[in-house]
Amino acid sequence: MAPRDGFQAEDAWIPTETKIAIIRQLAQTGLTSMEVTSFVHPKAIPQLRDAEEVVRAVQDETNLAFRALVPNVKGAERAISSGITKLKLMLSATDSHSLSNANATVKEAQDKLEPIIELAEKHDVKVGGSISVAFGCPYEGVVSVEQLRPILERYEKMGIKEVSLADTTGMANPKQVYDMLGQLQDEFKQVTFSMHFHNTRGLAIANTVSALEQGVTRFDSSIAGLGGCPYAPGASGNVATEDLVHALHEMGVETGADLDKVIASAKEARRLIGHDGGSYMLQAGPSKNLHGKVEAQEKLEK
Amino acid sequence: MAPRDGFQAEDAWIPTETKIAIIRQLAQTGLTSMEVTSFVHPKAIPQLRDAEEVVRAVQDETNLAFRALVPNVKGAERAISSGITKLKLMLSATDSHSLSNANATVKEAQDKLEPIIELAEKHDVKVGGSISVAFGCPYEGVVSVEQLRPILERYEKMGIKEVSLADTTGMANPKQVYDMLGQLQDEFKQVTFSMHFHNTRGLAIANTVSALEQGVTRFDSSIAGLGGCPYAPGASGNVATEDLVHALHEMGVETGADLDKVIASAKEARRLIGHDGGSYMLQAGPSKNLHGKVEAQEKLEK
Repeated sequence: MAPRDGFQAEDAWIPTETKIAIIRQLAQTGLTSMEVTSFVHPKAIPQLRDAEEVVRAVQDETNLAFRALVPNVKGAERAISSGITKLKLMLSATDSHSLSNANATVKEAQDKLEPIIELAEKHDVKVGGSISVAFGCPYEGVVSVEQLRPILERYEKMGIKEVSLADTTGMANPKQVYDMLGQLQDEFKQVTFSMHFHNTRGLAIANTVSALEQGVTRFDSSIAGLGGCPYAPGASGNVATEDLVHALHEMGVETGADLDKVIASAKEARRLIGHDGGSYMLQAGPSKNLHGKVEAQEKLEK
Repeated sequence: MAPRDGFQAEDAWIPTETKIAIIRQLAQTGLTSMEVTSFVHPKAIPQLRDAEEVVRAVQDETNLAFRALVPNVKGAERAISSGITKLKLMLSATDSHSLSNANATVKEAQDKLEPIIELAEKHDVKVGGSISVAFGCPYEGVVSVEQLRPILERYEKMGIKEVSLADTTGMANPKQVYDMLGQLQDEFKQVTFSMHFHNTRGLAIANTVSALEQGVTRFDSSIAGLGGCPYAPGASGNVATEDLVHALHEMGVETGADLDKVIASAKEARRLIGHDGGSYMLQAGPSKNLHGKVEAQEKLEK
């Protein structure tokens, strides 16, 4: 998520070639998909005003399945014309967040998605859905399955088969994730859920374990933990990709990613951006990196 | 754990009255037990050379069941004579860590515990055991049930009924914790296990959930995440008490602690010590603290 959720949180302009360099390095890690940018209005998020340029430049990175976030038809047109073959739609679980984020109620925002679907169908481009603040809203508090149901029903009617449930401001907890996913997967058997956890309150990996226990296998993360949410006060970044890959590998869950290369990418991203967004691997390194034995241990060797 | 595991990691001298102030504030949070200090040799850990003074000063805090870590008979004598009624013994799971930490192999260190037990029995003082690097050792790597078994058998023979399993350098993962606890609780039915997770690699809360799922209900933590391990390279503090209490309350697990008071204690500890050791609550605050609605939301109100 770093090139979208990460970069958009940076006030200082990240040169287009820096964005491309980070994407190119991530393409060599074994990670297989990436949300490469967002085709929002350049005035809304100036940092991503080079979306077309970035997407066109990295088309040769065939290791990665690129998708782009599109908030409206204009964004979808720009995405498709620059070569994006998968769009991600966005909706909020609550009216409060939807009004802050999209200046429209959830219902109004949903209505605006219809023409995007039509456009995508015409161009044979895939579309996935997402629900922000799906577990908790910083304005309204805990979000219930009852609030998600009509949004998912509408997505289903539109033919959306994949929905990302986003804990945008890190309010989800492991029990809630387990219980809600159990119920949602039961009710929406045609939908494949993916998870988008922010680590604002330190629960992203615990939430990931709960989702794994419910059979979910798609997880968003951001290299070096870069990110935040420009419209959500106090929010911090997605869980760091290197922390997530490390945790999964330690549990014996295959990811296809090479942890050492992921950590190298995180270091390089931190160097290029000037900071990280919270990363245990960048501080402590992986568990498998053992330390040399110290002097007192000579006794053991004898 | 802050007054022991936290303070011992501080190079700068913490005045005795500061230590007492932090302990007194924690006694008002609803937390019920505390490892208040360690009776190690003052030259080994100069920061805790005021152990007697601290313990004597806080004896009136009857909300807290105090225990102290004792590495040897001399320490046990000092602890008992200053009024401690529960001792915690320490052993490492591996010879490498044991030699670094106690300059003795595991077997040698175990032999030295016998006279402490005798002394405690004579004074009617309780004794609990602990195993450091119980899930992973920074020198030897992953620790197995096979390595823990003889240590636990010896503890059992000594009459120890409570053992703290310490992930001293944050190498445990949720699957391992679940699997190992399942096996250990099955083999050692007379032993009550408590968990001591460090958050070095961001897995402490995920590991806590695994232990809860295995029925464990006793967890160490450190206010403001203070701590580390003077003998374990790259180690960071215990999981922050405020983060653990928040996570448990969000999942509906009762702790008896008042989260707001715990967070206030964390802020005060950070102020007094001059820094924290990593704390999500001190950065983001609890999920329940909602934000005021922003201007765009006026639409919703109408």
